[in-house]
Amino acid sequence: MAAASSFYSIVAGVGAGTGRSVAIKFAQTYPVALLARNPANYESIVKEINAAGGKAIGISTDVSSQSSVTNAFAEIQKEFKGKKLAAAVYNVGGKFVRKPFLELSLEEYEAGYEANGKGFFLFAQATLPSLLSSVPDSPHPPSLIITGATASLRGGSNMSSFASGKFALRATGQSLAREFGPQGVHVAHAIIDGVIDIPRTKGWNANNGAPDGKISADAIADSYWYLHTQPRSHFTQELDVRPYVEKF
Amino acid sequence: MAAASSFYSIVAGVGAGTGRSVAIKFAQTYPVALLARNPANYESIVKEINAAGGKAIGISTDVSSQSSVTNAFAEIQKEFKGKKLAAAVYNVGGKFVRKPFLELSLEEYEAGYEANGKGFFLFAQATLPSLLSSVPDSPHPPSLIITGATASLRGGSNMSSFASGKFALRATGQSLAREFGPQGVHVAHAIIDGVIDIPRTKGWNANNGAPDGKISADAIADSYWYLHTQPRSHFTQELDVRPYVEKF
Amino acid sequence: MAAASSFYSIVAGVGAGTGRSVAIKFAQTYPVALLARNPANYESIVKEINAAGGKAIGISTDVSSQSSVTNAFAEIQKEFKGKKLAAAVYNVGGKFVRKPFLELSLEEYEAGYEANGKGFFLFAQATLPSLLSSVPDSPHPPSLIITGATASLRGGSNMSSFASGKFALRATGQSLAREFGPQGVHVAHAIIDGVIDIPRTKGWNANNGAPDGKISADAIADSYWYLHTQPRSHFTQELDVRPYVEKF
Amino acid sequence: MAAASSFYSIVAGVGAGTGRSVAIKFAQTYPVALLARNPANYESIVKEINAAGGKAIGISTDVSSQSSVTNAFAEIQKEFKGKKLAAAVYNVGGKFVRKPFLELSLEEYEAGYEANGKGFFLFAQATLPSLLSSVPDSPHPPSLIITGATASLRGGSNMSSFASGKFALRATGQSLAREFGPQGVHVAHAIIDGVIDIPRTKGWNANNGAPDGKISADAIADSYWYLHTQPRSHFTQELDVRPYVEKF
Repeated sequence: MAAASSFYSIVAGVGAGTGRSVAIKFAQTYPVALLARNPANYESIVKEINAAGGKAIGISTDVSSQSSVTNAFAEIQKEFKGKKLAAAVYNVGGKFVRKPFLELSLEEYEAGYEANGKGFFLFAQATLPSLLSSVPDSPHPPSLIITGATASLRGGSNMSSFASGKFALRATGQSLAREFGPQGVHVAHAIIDGVIDIPRTKGWNANNGAPDGKISADAIADSYWYLHTQPRSHFTQELDVRPYVEKF
Repeated sequence: MAAASSFYSIVAGVGAGTGRSVAIKFAQTYPVALLARNPANYESIVKEINAAGGKAIGISTDVSSQSSVTNAFAEIQKEFKGKKLAAAVYNVGGKFVRKPFLELSLEEYEAGYEANGKGFFLFAQATLPSLLSSVPDSPHPPSLIITGATASLRGGSNMSSFASGKFALRATGQSLAREFGPQGVHVAHAIIDGVIDIPRTKGWNANNGAPDGKISADAIADSYWYLHTQPRSHFTQELDVRPYVEKF
Repeated sequence: MAAASSFYSIVAGVGAGTGRSVAIKFAQTYPVALLARNPANYESIVKEINAAGGKAIGISTDVSSQSSVTNAFAEIQKEFKGKKLAAAVYNVGGKFVRKPFLELSLEEYEAGYEANGKGFFLFAQATLPSLLSSVPDSPHPPSLIITGATASLRGGSNMSSFASGKFALRATGQSLAREFGPQGVHVAHAIIDGVIDIPRTKGWNANNGAPDGKISADAIADSYWYLHTQPRSHFTQELDVRPYVEKF
Repeated sequence: MAAASSFYSIVAGVGAGTGRSVAIKFAQTYPVALLARNPANYESIVKEINAAGGKAIGISTDVSSQSSVTNAFAEIQKEFKGKKLAAAVYNVGGKFVRKPFLELSLEEYEAGYEANGKGFFLFAQATLPSLLSSVPDSPHPPSLIITGATASLRGGSNMSSFASGKFALRATGQSLAREFGPQGVHVAHAIIDGVIDIPRTKGWNANNGAPDGKISADAIADSYWYLHTQPRSHFTQELDVRPYVEKF
């Protein structure tokens, strides 16, 4: 754990799975700010990292609210004063609504975009200026890493809410990769195609209960760290991830 | 022109280009309702169709407003009482914002989604019940046809607003094709990859001024009509369209 | 049927399904040369077209053999002397091998490429000079239309032979579209995603026996004719096709 | 360097760039067999690895010849008797032919497929049984890693030879991932989108001479090693790679 680095990192969308693993992974090198709407989602992780000699803070944030994001970043600036941003991870899932199209309310449909379109816009606008200013001296190219899903590539039946959000997120990520890549910021998009192995999915019968049939959140964290440490001569924009037994 | 059909059609997003050509094409077989925010965009087309012996009405509609869409469809129901819906075309472009990401306001970013995500949601929810009820006796499979763009497949630099909207639109279209196709409704998505040859683009130097270097709006209308008339054993979900000289 | 046109067409890969329907469709406007390895595959179609007042010839051709293709085109030149080529359709399926990878012989693996890679190369080289020379006066942009499949986009398990051939075919078709499109030749690729409704598939339980659950070969022919008649300001490079009930 | 491992690796297609870097990277953990048609392509690398305390052998192999591949693998079995295969990398570029379609000879067109279709088929059939038998005890999931290119996704003008081969390679790789993934073998495909920084490309003006405007071969080797070390709960099937300044 590295409480004393002159760089820090941010993970938005922290819970028991990917966000937690990513936070712990990046905290080995950088202090980390954890954003989640519900403090219960980050409190134990913050404690865990700080207890292990790292440095973490948690900030209750609604990423789809401009004012909430503004407040969160003001607090980050204050807490990590003098440090520069090396990596920002957008791992917000949002409310997952799966139902027949004609039963969706407008609010339910928009939930996908709120979390993955609007929320990412606000997060990216808040982090990119800092990432750009870190280009000259960051140990690795400053990185903006985005969590996608199967629904980033495919609009499945009954999935219009989630898929429209994840498609919008991917579009924006591509656009940023093309604009900010040449300026030295690494924008990468990971398509997580499968069920993640977390407490909440314990009972889920993914891949007929095959051993390792759910994705290890720690392995996702390793892949995000690998993406972050790629040199600028070799940026991956997109990779997919799934358990060996997953149909695709 | 066919004022007396027992089926009608709707075109949302009518102006001097694709919308006008599509309206005139479909009006040869069905009465047609034209939706646009600004009545100036449909008034002359309505006159043109009615003068030619067809039947057209125009309704000022903001497709991204629930109440405006509700009002528009109430008026359509009244005007076309007793007729059934055979085809609905979503051709809304929305405000096209192209600028560096950090110069975008939230409102500008969301303009893409407002027109292509939210607007299409409202339009699809308003038309699908009618399209479903036409399945048994529509002369061709009831159709929901969507206008996409280059930005439906690629998030270009400075294009995050438009691309996030067009990606969301494509996601939703795919989802609806998978849900409503098996029920007999044809949901198709056309990727218009090039400049359309309309008065507004007259001065644009598309493809170095090559003859036919811009897309004929009438040809787009022909393609939408072709899509509409495909039998249910042979539905095209997606096709692309570009001038012969367009780079891709 | 149009025996007297000064243009002609060619369909390679003729049998009881798509090839037959395409030949009959195009024969309504142009004399047509039908190529198949086995004369039994075209003889009845040739008779049918000629009996209906059209003009058709059949030539036994192995499209993956340079000399066989050379002979076939020499015969076509002789038979259609003075006429120009308006449309060439490549509809060769080849031997379809579906088996575990480690049980494939090299010959079986290569069968996919032989039919769809090498065969198309020979066909395209034989037809493109004629298509180019028809650009100035062909009634519609001279067209090279290619039959693809689900396996053009997805390498499924046990499908390496067929998919490698169909991927190679699609790659070559894209390359030709980009090279010859700007010269006025329309190169289009259709992804046929489903079982075609032909005598051979009569007993197949496609889509649980749903009515119209197999693709109508006549509808494919209509789509190829639609592609052929697109103006050069509006070329479709790729479209997909499937029954309304097909999962995708 | 790890001469004493009970596992070994194979790299086909070794030259001054990716193949060399990958061989050196994997040789840090496993003895490595290097395959290239021309011994000059591997001799210095073999020396370099052995001098550093690793273990490498080189075998002159024509991957598109069944007998040559059979001989090469017989020699590998003999040299690495008692060891098991942990990783096989297919990095064969083949003859790169870029010219107008009508100027291509059949042999030139087929060069793409010979190297990337047929050659990979032979390599995969020779390595997969060994990889499967390593599943129970390999330190990382046994891996078959494939080098793709921009032309794996796009058939550019004048690129039909190379693109048809790379498309066929990708199709086959996908098919194998779907068949052998569930059996524990990791089949991954890397899309190398840019010029690799090797002696041969020294004078190439990639990305206007921008610093790091060519891809580091060592970084590619790191990505292949990262792919190899992914756990089976988290397999990446495809990733792309390009310099930060590369247009895409």
